[in-house]
Amino acid sequence: MKLSGVGEASIIGLFQHAFAAEDAGLRMGIGDDAAVLANGGPERFRLVTADLLIEDIHFERRTITPFQLGFKSVAVNVSDLRAMGGVSRFLLYSLALPGDLDFQEIEQFADGIRAATSRFGGVVIGGDTCRSAAGIVISVTAIGETARPVYRSGARVGDGIYVSGTLGDASLGLELLRRLGSRIDPEHLPREGLASRLGLMCREEDLLHAIYCHLMPEPVMTDMPPEVSAMIDVSDGLVLDLSRLCDASGVGVCLEASRIPIAEGTRRISALLGLDPLELALQGGEDYQLLFTAPDGLTLAGATRIGKIVQEGREILKADGQPLAWPTRGGYDHFEPIIPA
Amino acid sequence: MKLSGVGEASIIGLFQHAFAAEDAGLRMGIGDDAAVLANGGPERFRLVTADLLIEDIHFERRTITPFQLGFKSVAVNVSDLRAMGGVSRFLLYSLALPGDLDFQEIEQFADGIRAATSRFGGVVIGGDTCRSAAGIVISVTAIGETARPVYRSGARVGDGIYVSGTLGDASLGLELLRRLGSRIDPEHLPREGLASRLGLMCREEDLLHAIYCHLMPEPVMTDMPPEVSAMIDVSDGLVLDLSRLCDASGVGVCLEASRIPIAEGTRRISALLGLDPLELALQGGEDYQLLFTAPDGLTLAGATRIGKIVQEGREILKADGQPLAWPTRGGYDHFEPIIPA
Repeated sequence: MKLSGVGEASIIGLFQHAFAAEDAGLRMGIGDDAAVLANGGPERFRLVTADLLIEDIHFERRTITPFQLGFKSVAVNVSDLRAMGGVSRFLLYSLALPGDLDFQEIEQFADGIRAATSRFGGVVIGGDTCRSAAGIVISVTAIGETARPVYRSGARVGDGIYVSGTLGDASLGLELLRRLGSRIDPEHLPREGLASRLGLMCREEDLLHAIYCHLMPEPVMTDMPPEVSAMIDVSDGLVLDLSRLCDASGVGVCLEASRIPIAEGTRRISALLGLDPLELALQGGEDYQLLFTAPDGLTLAGATRIGKIVQEGREILKADGQPLAWPTRGGYDHFEPIIPA
Repeated sequence: MKLSGVGEASIIGLFQHAFAAEDAGLRMGIGDDAAVLANGGPERFRLVTADLLIEDIHFERRTITPFQLGFKSVAVNVSDLRAMGGVSRFLLYSLALPGDLDFQEIEQFADGIRAATSRFGGVVIGGDTCRSAAGIVISVTAIGETARPVYRSGARVGDGIYVSGTLGDASLGLELLRRLGSRIDPEHLPREGLASRLGLMCREEDLLHAIYCHLMPEPVMTDMPPEVSAMIDVSDGLVLDLSRLCDASGVGVCLEASRIPIAEGTRRISALLGLDPLELALQGGEDYQLLFTAPDGLTLAGATRIGKIVQEGREILKADGQPLAWPTRGGYDHFEPIIPA
C-alpha cells in the first residue's frame, strides 16, 4: 500500500503503536499537541512539539516573504504549546536550503523568527542546516513549559465547546493569495489596491486581514482559566481538530452552526468569490485559534461558545434546529497537498 | 550572495549572532553538539540536539534500507548527546514522505528506530508528518540528560587529544557502497560475495565492517572519566571537528599522523582502491567516534592519544617529525553534497 493511499492518520497510528513505551519522565507521548515531560522541579512540566514547513506543500516562495515565513514558523509551533496551556521557551531550527537562495533571504528569515519570538516567547538554541536537494525544508522543534498541562482528553459530557477569535480567515487568505500569485507585504502591495487587482468590491482591510491570518498567524496569548477541561489548536480545520479532541476524550459533540464565529469581512468576501464561509470555518486550515471545552456557562473575552459535548456522535445543527451533514472529508490531511500539483 | 557560495559556517554564524539571547534556563545555545538547559532539579541538565537526514544529500534510497535509515537516524543524534557527556531520553521525528513510498517501508523504518533506541536509549514521543514535494526528509530532535555537560570549549594547553575507535571506516564504506550501487543487508548480499563483485582481493568481513560503519554507525556508549576537559563527536571528519573544538577552546593543536587509529582492513582496502587511508581518517565524515581532550597520561580502553593541545596553530607531524600540510578543505561541509549531483 502506497502512502498516497493511506493518509496521515495511519502513519501517526503506526508511530503511536510502535513507540507506546513507558518512561517514568514522560506524561504524554505521541497523540496531543505537544509531548509532556516531568521536569526536575515539582511544579512545572516541559512541553515539546515539532512542525514541518515544506516548500510547495505548506508554502510557495512566490507568495510568502522570508520574513513572514520565519514569523509563521514560530507562530505555528507556539500555538501547539499554547494548546497545552503552556508558554514558549526554546526553539530549534533544522533547515535544508537550496543553494540558489540569497544569504540576505536567510537574514530576513531570521528577522522574522526574532520578531515572532519577541512577541510570543522563546529563544533559538540550536538546530542543523544543510543543502537541500529540492526546495526549502524548515523543521522546528519548540520547547515550552506549563504548571498544568491541558490535554485533548479531558472533555466531559455536558461541557460547553468554545473557540477563540474567528474561523475561516486563513483559508480565505490562502485562496486570495493564490489568485494574486504574488507576495503581499507593506513593500509589495499592488499600487492599484488589492480589491481592484482581484476585481472585488470589498474593503482593502478585510482582504489584508484574511491574507495576513494566513501569512502571519498569531497564536492565542490569552491565559486560559483553570476550568478548561480539554484543548487543541485549530490548525487543520475545526471539524478535524474537534474530532481529534472528541476521539481523545471518548465523547461526542453537538455544534451549533449559527454560533461559529466568522468575521464579517470574511463572510462578505467569501460571498463575492462564491465560497461558503461556513465551509471555510468548518474545514479551512491554519486558523491557529484555540478550541477548548469547559463547564457550561464559562465566559471568556474573545471566546465563543459553539456547541456542547454529548455522549456520542458528531452533529452540526442549523439555526432552525435541523441537522447539517457532518463533513466527511473534514479538514486538512497532511498527505494532501494544499497547493495542488 | 547565493548560499551555494557561502557554506554552512556562515549560516550557523548568522544564527549564532541573531539569537545570542540570554535566558536564565539556558547554559549553552547554538555552538556545541547539543544545547544545554538547566533542569528543575539541581543535579541534572537537559540536552537538546537536532539533525537532518535528507534523501540524495545524506543518503540514497538505492543503497540504504528503511531499517538501516531508521537505525542511523537515532545513532547520529545519540552521538551528539554522548559528545556532551549525556544519555538519550526522548526523540521527536518530523518526516516528509513521498507518496510513492510503501507503508511497509515506514514500518521497517520504525523497526530500525526501535532497534537503535533499545540499544542506545530514548523513546519516541512526538513529531510531525506530511507529504514531501521531493524526496524523503527526516528531521530528528533528541533530548538527553547529564549530570555534568562536557563542552567543546574546555580544552587546555598541555591536554592530550584522544579519539575512540578507528577513523575513516565510514567514508571508505560510503565509497564502497557507491561502487556497489545497491543495498547491503543480510538479505541483499550478492551471491558471489562483495569482494568479487567489487573486483578486490580482500576479506569479506573488512568490506562489511566499513560499509556497516557508514550504514549503521554506533555511538560510543562507554562512560567518559571526569578528567575529560572538552569533547565533540567526529561527524564531519577529524580535521574539521578538531578545528571546531580548538576554536571553541581558543587553543591550538599538534596531531601525530602515525598515531591516528585506522583499522587494518580499512588500510588494506584503501590501498587496493588507490585511496590514502590517512586522508580518509583526517577528512572522511560520519565516523561518530568521540574526540576529546584530557590531562596528558590518561588511559582509557578503546581510546587512542593522537596529539596534544598547544597554544596556537594547527599542525600534523609525520612519524619522522616532519610537518604534513593541514588539509585546507577540511571535512564535510553540509552545503557540499556527499553524493555528487
